[in-house]
Amino acid sequence: MPDVQRSVAIAVHGGAGTLDPSAMTPEKEAAYRGVLSTAVRKGHAVLAGGGSALDAVEAAVRVLEDSPLFNAGRGAVFTADGTHEMDAAIMEGTGLRAGAVAGVQNVKNPVGLARLVMERSGHVMLSGRGAFEFAHQQKVALEDDEYFFDQLRHDQWQEVRGSTEVRLDHSTGEKKFGTVGAVALDAKGHLAAATSTGGMTNKRWQRIGDSPVPGAGTYANNATCAISCTGNGEAFLRAVAAHDVHALMSYKGLSLEEAVRIVVHEKLPPLDGEGGLIAVDKDGRIVLDFNCTGMYRAMIDGNGEVVAIFR
Amino acid sequence: MPDVQRSVAIAVHGGAGTLDPSAMTPEKEAAYRGVLSTAVRKGHAVLAGGGSALDAVEAAVRVLEDSPLFNAGRGAVFTADGTHEMDAAIMEGTGLRAGAVAGVQNVKNPVGLARLVMERSGHVMLSGRGAFEFAHQQKVALEDDEYFFDQLRHDQWQEVRGSTEVRLDHSTGEKKFGTVGAVALDAKGHLAAATSTGGMTNKRWQRIGDSPVPGAGTYANNATCAISCTGNGEAFLRAVAAHDVHALMSYKGLSLEEAVRIVVHEKLPPLDGEGGLIAVDKDGRIVLDFNCTGMYRAMIDGNGEVVAIFR
Repeated sequence: MPDVQRSVAIAVHGGAGTLDPSAMTPEKEAAYRGVLSTAVRKGHAVLAGGGSALDAVEAAVRVLEDSPLFNAGRGAVFTADGTHEMDAAIMEGTGLRAGAVAGVQNVKNPVGLARLVMERSGHVMLSGRGAFEFAHQQKVALEDDEYFFDQLRHDQWQEVRGSTEVRLDHSTGEKKFGTVGAVALDAKGHLAAATSTGGMTNKRWQRIGDSPVPGAGTYANNATCAISCTGNGEAFLRAVAAHDVHALMSYKGLSLEEAVRIVVHEKLPPLDGEGGLIAVDKDGRIVLDFNCTGMYRAMIDGNGEVVAIFR
Repeated sequence: MPDVQRSVAIAVHGGAGTLDPSAMTPEKEAAYRGVLSTAVRKGHAVLAGGGSALDAVEAAVRVLEDSPLFNAGRGAVFTADGTHEMDAAIMEGTGLRAGAVAGVQNVKNPVGLARLVMERSGHVMLSGRGAFEFAHQQKVALEDDEYFFDQLRHDQWQEVRGSTEVRLDHSTGEKKFGTVGAVALDAKGHLAAATSTGGMTNKRWQRIGDSPVPGAGTYANNATCAISCTGNGEAFLRAVAAHDVHALMSYKGLSLEEAVRIVVHEKLPPLDGEGGLIAVDKDGRIVLDFNCTGMYRAMIDGNGEVVAIFR
């Protein structure tokens, strides 16, 4: 029997991008680090208590969704219509079950709704008003628009409102891909991944990115690894990025580190695929890699906790 | 220089499933075969004239969308709300560009809209009302609800209306996965794939299946092959089916035939993944495979035209 304290592993991310260190005050950095640490510890506590990887990634992502600092849940950016349309997905590697929602409004925790899609809808992906109807039927916690209001997000939107420009959750001088996610390995060897996002500021046409798409932004398979991506969603969709990491491990026999390196540094850049991903393999090895200047991230494995933002 | 007439190849499908041969009158079969033949010839004419694989798959799928016989475009099934919500995707294997729409209404040819998403939106996937707004802006042909009305589809819906049952485009005694698609190799060695569907009869919650998801129901990569799937969409999403065929070829060096066999007959069945797919590789070899009793299909390669329904 594996030692529970040694074999479990969890990682979280809060987005990646071209971050400006000079815009990061010590207070801001401490706030970001604090939420990342709370999230990864919350997920780890689930694992340490013998809980499932699925419960752990959901618990960790809920913490990030409940913070206004990250572009997901409460902190979701504004669409062109001034609304908040959120995407989320969850997947478990034992039975390859997956659930996802795209473009859902007023749901407090989209990751929890994705889990209910997986367990109770008979489907994998629900979208828009239909996903909201399912949420209402499942009696998940809803919040009015005021809950999702944030002055910084609103200011970001005002900068581009009325134009066709979309922004990847950045302030002046930054290009940040706002997404949160978690990956985990539990004591029974089960893997799971979850991702949640508010998408792009000023987005139109109910655009769907990679986050809610199994194989693109989120993937888990006990045979190899669990992955959650963050970056230019269009590129990650075209690269089928998360499944490609799995395939490189499964069919080429590569290590997690090498498979991630190929996808993040070789496959994605030619597609304008700026961003990164977090991954954990079936042996509990964690890889946090990105091809931009920073990624909000934290992990706990047998060696303890690490929280980081820049390279 | 390759001989254009010899090197190009194209295949189309009009869905798969547990078909009942006794329900197939000679007249019905002739009608299905006629449209399949028209579609594959239309696409082949594009290729024979030196046109691109992208133009060929779009042309072929438009023919299938314009027929009331297949569950796509004009023949799209009814949702629980009595509407027609259509999904489509297109992808080209040279630059790995892709475009898709999910849950779009009143668009005559969703595959054409998916192409415009790819070429003019800056995004990969648009959905629902947002995709319709984009369609309107791009001035694509729209049709009123009457155009999509079909007595058979309406009767199918009435059988399950008001219940929570969803049906995969079947009549009594049949279980048919209604989707259309095309894959092609052009004289320059470019591959492309396209898929279009009306989804499931009585579907709710703006469910999204595999058809509009790059990597799941539709994929193209000049390094290996182009693929269009049809079947239980949830399973194909969880299996990341189309990209898995590519990965087995790319990373394990398998032939198209062997890669397709593994996905269709080994990977999908444990996930309740009934259905099939059509594929063409970079050398013009075509594989049409399915794990149910039939798949509406047609192909033209150097050996001429084949049209088939049952095994």
